[in-house]
Amino acid sequence: MENKMVQIEKKLYKLVSTLYPICRSITGDGVRETLRIIQKIIPIKIHEVPSGTKVFDWEVPEEWNIKDAYVKTSSGERIIDFKKSNLHVLGYSVPVKKRVTIEELKEHIFTLEDLPDAIPYRTSYYNRNWGFCISYNQFKELNDKEYDVLIDSSFKKGYLTYGELFLRGRSKDEILISTHICHPSLCNDNLSGIAVATYLAKLVNDLKNREYSYRFLFIPGTIGSITWLAKNEDKIKDIKHGLVLSCLGDKGSFTYKKSRRGNATIDRAVEKALEDSKFGYEIRDFSPFGYDERQYCSPGINLPVGCLMRTPYGEFKEYHTSLDNLDFIDSKSLEESLQLCIRIFNILENNKTYINTNPKCEPHLGKRGLYKHIGGEGQKEKEKIILWILNLSDGTNDLLDIAIKGGINFCKAQDMCDVLIKKGLLKEKKKGI
Amino acid sequence: MENKMVQIEKKLYKLVSTLYPICRSITGDGVRETLRIIQKIIPIKIHEVPSGTKVFDWEVPEEWNIKDAYVKTSSGERIIDFKKSNLHVLGYSVPVKKRVTIEELKEHIFTLEDLPDAIPYRTSYYNRNWGFCISYNQFKELNDKEYDVLIDSSFKKGYLTYGELFLRGRSKDEILISTHICHPSLCNDNLSGIAVATYLAKLVNDLKNREYSYRFLFIPGTIGSITWLAKNEDKIKDIKHGLVLSCLGDKGSFTYKKSRRGNATIDRAVEKALEDSKFGYEIRDFSPFGYDERQYCSPGINLPVGCLMRTPYGEFKEYHTSLDNLDFIDSKSLEESLQLCIRIFNILENNKTYINTNPKCEPHLGKRGLYKHIGGEGQKEKEKIILWILNLSDGTNDLLDIAIKGGINFCKAQDMCDVLIKKGLLKEKKKGI
Amino acid sequence: MENKMVQIEKKLYKLVSTLYPICRSITGDGVRETLRIIQKIIPIKIHEVPSGTKVFDWEVPEEWNIKDAYVKTSSGERIIDFKKSNLHVLGYSVPVKKRVTIEELKEHIFTLEDLPDAIPYRTSYYNRNWGFCISYNQFKELNDKEYDVLIDSSFKKGYLTYGELFLRGRSKDEILISTHICHPSLCNDNLSGIAVATYLAKLVNDLKNREYSYRFLFIPGTIGSITWLAKNEDKIKDIKHGLVLSCLGDKGSFTYKKSRRGNATIDRAVEKALEDSKFGYEIRDFSPFGYDERQYCSPGINLPVGCLMRTPYGEFKEYHTSLDNLDFIDSKSLEESLQLCIRIFNILENNKTYINTNPKCEPHLGKRGLYKHIGGEGQKEKEKIILWILNLSDGTNDLLDIAIKGGINFCKAQDMCDVLIKKGLLKEKKKGI
Repeated sequence: MENKMVQIEKKLYKLVSTLYPICRSITGDGVRETLRIIQKIIPIKIHEVPSGTKVFDWEVPEEWNIKDAYVKTSSGERIIDFKKSNLHVLGYSVPVKKRVTIEELKEHIFTLEDLPDAIPYRTSYYNRNWGFCISYNQFKELNDKEYDVLIDSSFKKGYLTYGELFLRGRSKDEILISTHICHPSLCNDNLSGIAVATYLAKLVNDLKNREYSYRFLFIPGTIGSITWLAKNEDKIKDIKHGLVLSCLGDKGSFTYKKSRRGNATIDRAVEKALEDSKFGYEIRDFSPFGYDERQYCSPGINLPVGCLMRTPYGEFKEYHTSLDNLDFIDSKSLEESLQLCIRIFNILENNKTYINTNPKCEPHLGKRGLYKHIGGEGQKEKEKIILWILNLSDGTNDLLDIAIKGGINFCKAQDMCDVLIKKGLLKEKKKGI
Repeated sequence: MENKMVQIEKKLYKLVSTLYPICRSITGDGVRETLRIIQKIIPIKIHEVPSGTKVFDWEVPEEWNIKDAYVKTSSGERIIDFKKSNLHVLGYSVPVKKRVTIEELKEHIFTLEDLPDAIPYRTSYYNRNWGFCISYNQFKELNDKEYDVLIDSSFKKGYLTYGELFLRGRSKDEILISTHICHPSLCNDNLSGIAVATYLAKLVNDLKNREYSYRFLFIPGTIGSITWLAKNEDKIKDIKHGLVLSCLGDKGSFTYKKSRRGNATIDRAVEKALEDSKFGYEIRDFSPFGYDERQYCSPGINLPVGCLMRTPYGEFKEYHTSLDNLDFIDSKSLEESLQLCIRIFNILENNKTYINTNPKCEPHLGKRGLYKHIGGEGQKEKEKIILWILNLSDGTNDLLDIAIKGGINFCKAQDMCDVLIKKGLLKEKKKGI
Repeated sequence: MENKMVQIEKKLYKLVSTLYPICRSITGDGVRETLRIIQKIIPIKIHEVPSGTKVFDWEVPEEWNIKDAYVKTSSGERIIDFKKSNLHVLGYSVPVKKRVTIEELKEHIFTLEDLPDAIPYRTSYYNRNWGFCISYNQFKELNDKEYDVLIDSSFKKGYLTYGELFLRGRSKDEILISTHICHPSLCNDNLSGIAVATYLAKLVNDLKNREYSYRFLFIPGTIGSITWLAKNEDKIKDIKHGLVLSCLGDKGSFTYKKSRRGNATIDRAVEKALEDSKFGYEIRDFSPFGYDERQYCSPGINLPVGCLMRTPYGEFKEYHTSLDNLDFIDSKSLEESLQLCIRIFNILENNKTYINTNPKCEPHLGKRGLYKHIGGEGQKEKEKIILWILNLSDGTNDLLDIAIKGGINFCKAQDMCDVLIKKGLLKEKKKGI
């Protein structure tokens, strides 16, 4: 088990490393290449939605691809080179090839004065523009009168590409896992989410006897979740719990942003999983900015979908810069994030409502071997768990409620339910009653 | 605007100064004179309710007036003189003219040992008595054997006088502003409330297109609000929000005492107005002592009426003494109080419930010019406001709820609603749905 | 009154002292002797329930009695002697008479390394075993090779014995007081509870005009309350409030463990009684471990029964050891506990819901002599109480609610209700409306 986890740690980090150099955007060949690499690990289906498709208030944009881009001095030196970092090009830049004055060039350059060594990550998806992103230190040294600028990009009627893996469980009820795949060479945001979702899907796929069906979406941010929701409105009603995964590779403690409902089972389950884990964490209320939880939690969709992160988007200084690189994340953090997700799924899978079959006074635990023989000492932990379960199993509390109210580790509560069921002291409440 | 506010500051203070010397009580010519001065600024109607009129459990008392009062030494020196301060006479004193021993006199003298320079303000409305109020320092120096005492007051079947200004809005629904006018030469309690209510009425009167109707009451405390409620039971149902104004001229921070309901719209609106303002403030739960909110919030009336103050009644040492004078209050504080009331009215006038016309996923803000063009940076304040409004406008939250939940300045939220309506992304929810 | 309380202090402590030497268990003659001593003070009925009687999931056990027990060295010295302390014998030990090796003996010895001078209290009710409890210091000195062991105990078809006192009030509605009587020479747990319950019953019995009926149960822990509930299912519906009394003689501050419902009237009444008292206290949520509240608050019974203690069970180091002796408790603590219970009963007896007969505006208190004559001063305490009662007596708040919301001493609120009823300003709300 220890070994298996070390192996998974390595695999998670390796997947991030493999995907790191690829130039992704909300459409294009970088996304396709990314999905094909994931497909080697888990059997995702790759969907292609044509440009121009109407998706609610939006439209799938033209597909954007890029071959090369640079800024050259008049002496021919490539001082800004897309091949060195795909962050150098403003995402969705229109093609350009011309000689420009330094003044014109500077109008198309994005930089971060506060982090003078970092290349910022910038895009202009829905407003045609071109631009370069460079470090502030480099920016200061631009002093030629003219430069040659090339962006060899293309826009064409193409497709929006996303990956989907549906794993059928005993029930039609679904757990949704969604992660965005539109960012280029940025590790924490969001190759970390992609890697965790991939290996999570692999583990769920191996899981016999799962109760829930699971749906994993590898989608471009915003337009991807909007596209999926618009084309799958009939499936929305089956989604009972969901998580957006992002920023899961840094060394910070966990942050869970609740669903818009605020008290959904997923919200209680994540909080309990965090409490049961050894990890530090913070729980935040929903806000309508961030990643795809914005779409899943829009008022007309209102799914119980929260967002799991370590340090939240926008709150680490490396966010959306070239500093969010392979050194910024580590394999241990990725593996902990995976572990936590498994713990959450375990709670959801096992969160049943039970009925105490013997509700008048306590049952005689001693004669069933469930009670210490020598009275007079303090209550032992196992007995406390039994007493909480029996006391609260009146049909109004699910096992998650009981674990929360009793301050009990969920797995221990679940194990004890199995024992009590075998002893005839507990039975599962029938659904719909 | 700056100039206009400076002018209003001066006018507020000037009105207090003009009213300061008048000897008011719960009935009588001082009240009439006060109302006539207010009438020069706003078109209040002056009501006269005859003595003996039954008003719920009470009866309008006889009218009390006073011409002169003094205590003279045997050598003829007026050592206590009503003409120097109307606080010297116990309110509603019966007429008296006799020579009394120092012992008898002292039984009729009220003083404040803790504030030895201050003349206390005392009344005896419903128990016939006579008396003088003087500073403790003066009291200590009384050492003649006998004094000549005169109180040239009169009781007669007369009237209880109050002022009322009703300003019709588009809706029959009313906002009630009530302020007590029964105190003699006391500035903060309550010439400050009178001045703020007067200029507030003037501003509301000038306001085109107001939604609510407004009712301003200038009434004697307790008996005045009881009289108005008893004689206007048919109007009570139209009062949707209300404020009692008192103690609004001192330099302390604001205090809002909630209505008995505790979660009425007025309670939420005042709290939000205070939060949005730069002023310090404290919110308190309702208690059944204080000013006319006691009557408006009696169990059989139970109107959503709170009480807005700076330092609350009874909590500043100058309260109900001659130290509550023109030096104790200042024009800036009066003007801030006025400003705050305007902010509250603005919230009430604009607190609509909206419906996101595009509730499935976010609408495409970029193509409507509502979104920054360069992605990758942090969310801008204006965009956050838009996202909060759209996310929560599902018909269950009014704009005040949204501003509170999103931590948004109400005016900014309101401005953004106008923009979103123009863009077709938001519409007003129809009433009664 | 002072004298009477000093007398009760002495009586409480004397009862503890008298009961201290008796060897009690969940059945047997020690319980009978204990109940007969209580019977000299209050007219309890002694019930005998035959061994083998089915009580819910349990069965009344065989009756256990013990005449003598010892461990002797081969030289004949009684080094462990039941006659010196009844804690020396494991409760419900089977009879044994044999020579044992030191190894075998040690398997049957219970000791407390952390409290090396204390004899622990241990039992083995439902698993046949024998054993001795001794101090760790004595345990360390055992070094003979063999010992003679005698436990002259007996098991037979007999009875479970408990005491009950039912005191009829005007109403069929009952207040239940339950205290466990199964512990041998342990003072705080629970001779203190027995003594307080006994004198409380005596005081209630002397009380004329009580509204509630009262039921006092002196029962063995767990099996006793289960037995009573199983045999009195028809009476459960009449129990409106209840308290388990235990650990009421130590010098710690009070602890109240709420009923399972968490917001029952008893929970609010105990908290208010503690707030009104001068005693320190802590309020805790229900948990399903402890004493007989476990049974009264099992999901199928779910009575509003809390548990009143000073230092809670298991949280004082003397708990369940020979150190819980006559020096550990004191008469003052016992008397305070009694006082607090009386205060709680007073709240329950007088917690009516009233209707303000004059709900529109305040009634004219001055003309009824309920208001100070000189206005302008601060509100006096008595007037504040009147105003709270009148304001909140709209039929939705009982007097306990009003006292809690207004921060009013309950007795003072109750006195003022009597005055307001006499003045015709308040009337009792009819039940069931």
